[in-house]
Amino acid sequence: MFYHDKKLQYKVRVEKPNPQFARALQQAIGGIEGEIRVCLQYLFQAWNSRGPQRYRDMLLDTGTEEMAHVELLVTAVAMNLEGASSGLVDEIIGNNTMMKEVMGGMDPRHFLSGGLGAMAADANGVPFNGSWVVSSGNIAADMYANVMAESTGRALATRLYELTDDAGMKDMLSFLIARDTMHQNQWLAVLEELGHGDMRNVHPIPNSFPQDKEAKEFSYVFVNTNIDPDEPSIGQNRRWTQGQSIDGK
Amino acid sequence: MFYHDKKLQYKVRVEKPNPQFARALQQAIGGIEGEIRVCLQYLFQAWNSRGPQRYRDMLLDTGTEEMAHVELLVTAVAMNLEGASSGLVDEIIGNNTMMKEVMGGMDPRHFLSGGLGAMAADANGVPFNGSWVVSSGNIAADMYANVMAESTGRALATRLYELTDDAGMKDMLSFLIARDTMHQNQWLAVLEELGHGDMRNVHPIPNSFPQDKEAKEFSYVFVNTNIDPDEPSIGQNRRWTQGQSIDGK
Amino acid sequence: MFYHDKKLQYKVRVEKPNPQFARALQQAIGGIEGEIRVCLQYLFQAWNSRGPQRYRDMLLDTGTEEMAHVELLVTAVAMNLEGASSGLVDEIIGNNTMMKEVMGGMDPRHFLSGGLGAMAADANGVPFNGSWVVSSGNIAADMYANVMAESTGRALATRLYELTDDAGMKDMLSFLIARDTMHQNQWLAVLEELGHGDMRNVHPIPNSFPQDKEAKEFSYVFVNTNIDPDEPSIGQNRRWTQGQSIDGK
Amino acid sequence: MFYHDKKLQYKVRVEKPNPQFARALQQAIGGIEGEIRVCLQYLFQAWNSRGPQRYRDMLLDTGTEEMAHVELLVTAVAMNLEGASSGLVDEIIGNNTMMKEVMGGMDPRHFLSGGLGAMAADANGVPFNGSWVVSSGNIAADMYANVMAESTGRALATRLYELTDDAGMKDMLSFLIARDTMHQNQWLAVLEELGHGDMRNVHPIPNSFPQDKEAKEFSYVFVNTNIDPDEPSIGQNRRWTQGQSIDGK
Amino acid sequence: MFYHDKKLQYKVRVEKPNPQFARALQQAIGGIEGEIRVCLQYLFQAWNSRGPQRYRDMLLDTGTEEMAHVELLVTAVAMNLEGASSGLVDEIIGNNTMMKEVMGGMDPRHFLSGGLGAMAADANGVPFNGSWVVSSGNIAADMYANVMAESTGRALATRLYELTDDAGMKDMLSFLIARDTMHQNQWLAVLEELGHGDMRNVHPIPNSFPQDKEAKEFSYVFVNTNIDPDEPSIGQNRRWTQGQSIDGK
Amino acid sequence: MFYHDKKLQYKVRVEKPNPQFARALQQAIGGIEGEIRVCLQYLFQAWNSRGPQRYRDMLLDTGTEEMAHVELLVTAVAMNLEGASSGLVDEIIGNNTMMKEVMGGMDPRHFLSGGLGAMAADANGVPFNGSWVVSSGNIAADMYANVMAESTGRALATRLYELTDDAGMKDMLSFLIARDTMHQNQWLAVLEELGHGDMRNVHPIPNSFPQDKEAKEFSYVFVNTNIDPDEPSIGQNRRWTQGQSIDGK
Ligand SMILES: [Ca+2]
Ligand SMILES: [Ca+2]
Ligand SMILES: [Ca+2]
Ligand SMILES: [Ca+2]
Ligand SMILES: [Ca+2]
Ligand SMILES: [Ca+2]
Repeated sequence: MFYHDKKLQYKVRVEKPNPQFARALQQAIGGIEGEIRVCLQYLFQAWNSRGPQRYRDMLLDTGTEEMAHVELLVTAVAMNLEGASSGLVDEIIGNNTMMKEVMGGMDPRHFLSGGLGAMAADANGVPFNGSWVVSSGNIAADMYANVMAESTGRALATRLYELTDDAGMKDMLSFLIARDTMHQNQWLAVLEELGHGDMRNVHPIPNSFPQDKEAKEFSYVFVNTNIDPDEPSIGQNRRWTQGQSIDGK
Repeated sequence: MFYHDKKLQYKVRVEKPNPQFARALQQAIGGIEGEIRVCLQYLFQAWNSRGPQRYRDMLLDTGTEEMAHVELLVTAVAMNLEGASSGLVDEIIGNNTMMKEVMGGMDPRHFLSGGLGAMAADANGVPFNGSWVVSSGNIAADMYANVMAESTGRALATRLYELTDDAGMKDMLSFLIARDTMHQNQWLAVLEELGHGDMRNVHPIPNSFPQDKEAKEFSYVFVNTNIDPDEPSIGQNRRWTQGQSIDGK
Repeated sequence: MFYHDKKLQYKVRVEKPNPQFARALQQAIGGIEGEIRVCLQYLFQAWNSRGPQRYRDMLLDTGTEEMAHVELLVTAVAMNLEGASSGLVDEIIGNNTMMKEVMGGMDPRHFLSGGLGAMAADANGVPFNGSWVVSSGNIAADMYANVMAESTGRALATRLYELTDDAGMKDMLSFLIARDTMHQNQWLAVLEELGHGDMRNVHPIPNSFPQDKEAKEFSYVFVNTNIDPDEPSIGQNRRWTQGQSIDGK
Repeated sequence: MFYHDKKLQYKVRVEKPNPQFARALQQAIGGIEGEIRVCLQYLFQAWNSRGPQRYRDMLLDTGTEEMAHVELLVTAVAMNLEGASSGLVDEIIGNNTMMKEVMGGMDPRHFLSGGLGAMAADANGVPFNGSWVVSSGNIAADMYANVMAESTGRALATRLYELTDDAGMKDMLSFLIARDTMHQNQWLAVLEELGHGDMRNVHPIPNSFPQDKEAKEFSYVFVNTNIDPDEPSIGQNRRWTQGQSIDGK
Repeated sequence: MFYHDKKLQYKVRVEKPNPQFARALQQAIGGIEGEIRVCLQYLFQAWNSRGPQRYRDMLLDTGTEEMAHVELLVTAVAMNLEGASSGLVDEIIGNNTMMKEVMGGMDPRHFLSGGLGAMAADANGVPFNGSWVVSSGNIAADMYANVMAESTGRALATRLYELTDDAGMKDMLSFLIARDTMHQNQWLAVLEELGHGDMRNVHPIPNSFPQDKEAKEFSYVFVNTNIDPDEPSIGQNRRWTQGQSIDGK
Repeated sequence: MFYHDKKLQYKVRVEKPNPQFARALQQAIGGIEGEIRVCLQYLFQAWNSRGPQRYRDMLLDTGTEEMAHVELLVTAVAMNLEGASSGLVDEIIGNNTMMKEVMGGMDPRHFLSGGLGAMAADANGVPFNGSWVVSSGNIAADMYANVMAESTGRALATRLYELTDDAGMKDMLSFLIARDTMHQNQWLAVLEELGHGDMRNVHPIPNSFPQDKEAKEFSYVFVNTNIDPDEPSIGQNRRWTQGQSIDGK
């Protein structure tokens, strides 16, 4: 069973709305590297699970967290679209040459179909596709799928970070990058526990992003979204919830 | 922000696993009339909302509930697939002529790709498609989209009910049908409040299903999934949370 | 059986070709809110119909009309693409800031794949998808699907109206918006007849568009596309063909 | 502009409803070889046309006819689904071994989603996809696309003919096969006129189907769907409307 | 069995990287008119073939060549994306008005998802779709599908040629256009051999492109990709491998 | 540049054609776990590569090999469809209860669209989708994507092995499973070289399949598809081409 409150997991602040960046953010919502994918992937793996309870619980905890990431990003898209139809916006890109190169315009459907709201689609307006949700019935294969999703997801987030000059957006992305670090390490820890190699000191992918730009206080904390004191998630003393992380931190 | 516990919103019981019925249930998971669609649709409408807070809160509450419905159905699929690869199952359809007619076999991908787990796809294995998630930026248009989703969703659930002889599955479906009744009435109440007609005594669609087969104790209860005592959902005294329902009950 | 003549249902005039607006118009052709969808949806509902003949006839009449709307829009796209490959077009956007913001460029496939012709795709080049064609076997659910399609379709048309400065395009859109008004009212009239509320004085969605910009002479006229004098459509004396409309006009 | 009457272009008769054959017929409705595709393809080519008026008119005439073929097939699907949910159907396949081999069951969505109605999808429930609608801006390329569509379409129709024992269905298919013969010949005649080879005595594809099973009275008749006496279609004295056909008949 | 070396089939040279042209080139990689489609189409037709060995061999030879065309184009995309994320690129479009009109920006996913690499998608980021791979079991129908693919493919290549001012890119495209000429003629020769018309002096589609801009030395040469001296491809003395070509050259 | 000969990489033998197993095999051709995906994925990663030449060469070698796996499987599908339309096949499933459970029938499009040939689609007829081709611009992320693809691919192949009683098909699958073992180990060796853990003695996923059923002589051999003696692939003395494999063998 699922619950919510009206808080966001992390603050979302946009200094200057930018509908082109809204388009870019869609990749992290409805793209193959995005948050809807990992949310559904972890939850389907949990619900389909016939294996050890502690993996099922971890998947439920993190799958639930990912829904909060979708929430952050949709909120960020809506804020970046603020005023986009007023006819008064100008110079939204300013001197950011890179943004100008990469993004030719906003997604026209953000205005035409969404009335300045986010969609369940990627940066090109291609809809989210359920085929991306991997739940194979094999825990090790699933964990590789999860590491892969978090690796390409973290690469995407660092590229979005590079694309924007907006301090608010950089701040939100530093949080999401930190969570990707944590989640990569989680799934690697499971692989290690399953006998899939000794993963000590593995750096999160991509290693080109300077970790001091991460919101580091969130990079090594397991987020327990289970609110039931009587039936807590199992595995609180496992490698993904305490002690040294996979990457040696 | 989202949370969960390890309970299901309603009990899921399967008397005799039936992989063909598992296939049929997929329509209610990843089909256009299914629960992933309404889950994402209500949440996107909430997150994109620039309108009255009380509608936003209701959408968040119910969107969160829909994720619990996905959970119920995925669990039901996995239970119906139990033993499907053992080579020992026989006569799973028995004397249910209708089932035999409608379903030619199980979804081969339930075994080949899912290892006897559910997928984010419909009854034909066609993946969930993000284009079905309607969030138009117009609250009235969105509410018609929601009534339509719950109408076709309830029609689907009653047809699944008709298709199965399994008492456990019928029980679960009677709960989901009851929730569809409630949700149809909710969105109609908003339309009424917005000036879109006088909706009194409107029977939930489809009206061919005898309401005494619903789990009626859940047909007229708003499920508040907001767990924050300090910031409760607004609108607790509205027509969708108390008093006579749209359909006069 | 279907017939045609070589006339358009309404004049299509483009003062100054604009390939970016051509791209935007694609949403109304092959997008989920577009005319191919309603055309097929009404026709499939008619052909699948086992209910009262008068609804079947109305669906056939209006489904046939929608094909004429696809015709208008494809014609408009081709006219807006006129000259787009000549290398001589310049300043097509002029001082329309909003257009500049929303549309980053034309759809490259309009040139590369279509040779300056329209496609069966949306404003992002995502192809029309048959899953959007709702025909549920339940007349009330279908009517909600139809109201929803016309609501989001009318919202789209009013946004296209807002996006363009071209007097010819505004004129064509004022016609399409008027027809959306009519069709919303039609389906609501059926719902009312089926006992789904008292719909008097319901304003067409979205209510933000000033109705005096509609081509009002077309807003309250049922278009009977049935040319057979021996077997006329039934229901000519119903609420959708005569008398006061749903919205009190 | 488009019109209709309430007649079908050819009688549709089903001796014994067969939901499995209904599933097979879907391929001819919403599959890549199906009638929605050719309907939209010919109409888009006509509407986008900048070339000779006589080709444009022919495309409009035949595109309009194809919509009547969709109508035939949807009607046939609905009739084959008659009674499919009653629980009383049995032995629908009887001794037709081939049908038993090919079709494992009906499409579950015909019941679950469509309430025993047809869908805009193929025989596997995969939705119609707008990317199949070819309109390239080059008349010769378009004509090859049309010959290809009619060739694979006629191959499909002859395979459906082979698959069924139902005299009514065989009759309807013999009509559709005859029309495919005619349409192949039409597009080849245009290619010949454009200088693309001497096409005399080319047999319609596939040549494995005995033409005496065609409804031959329809194999060499151009169907003029233009009802306007004041603006008739141009080209009435062309090779596709009179004289010896491409295949020497 | 398949082999490769590290050479390209033709040199790929980019004078000035242009990420917008990279986006346009995607249409020729993963679009419906693109090289992945013909590669898989010819190979599937070969592998599924039950007909004469010489057609099967030709399909294998040419299908294998098409993979080398994908290789050329992906290489060209990567080269055009060089430096696209450096933030230092400017004036990439320069005075090419047409490019500026057609392409609003680069594909944001080239940076966000691909890290400046090509994708299996079209110019709008819509993924390659396997439904485009036609293998009908009828050799004549397949050949029309192949002529159609090469016609629309050649039209696409000539439009790309028109779109760019880069001498390197024009050179590469002149090669690909020449190969399209050859392949059109090949499939027409098969049709002729099968009795589908007399194809002498048929000009390759589109005839608007001046053939002296083709890399003519490659326009009439069959590329035999079969490296096995002991089992050479059959048909080396056929019309597609020697003598006068279909178009009289 | 690519080449081929007319040999298969491994013999394909079908003792008794089974169109239902043909349908199951489609998952390994055009499904997300299938061979078209890995073929394109490795080739795109190679072509887009800006990293060390030895990884690029390995990706080219193995990507080319995967095309030969598509060839094996398409051949196997065509052989399993042999006679499927004759009306004489019976008892194709015999006593294989599991097959009867899993597969309700053959894919109707194998007959209707393919004329008894394979398609670029999965076991449910859902077309191959280019979005599955991961090439992220980050070598480590790509390698995780590759391990994931080979893990789910090997799980699929072992499930197909379990599903069939045909000795020829089991033999072919034992070869494909062996190659999946090799390829998993290759990509893990790259990860190890990149500093992503110590992968010694990692068992190929899934570990439930007894390796003595693999065609073990192919489980630890790098297949060099590069035929150019002057420019051999680099990395011949690396861990993936010689010495002890990742899994200690
Ligand atoms: Ca995340
Ligand atoms: Ca629900
Ligand atoms: Ca309309
Ligand atoms: Ca037809
Ligand atoms: Ca080519
Ligand atoms: Ca393989």
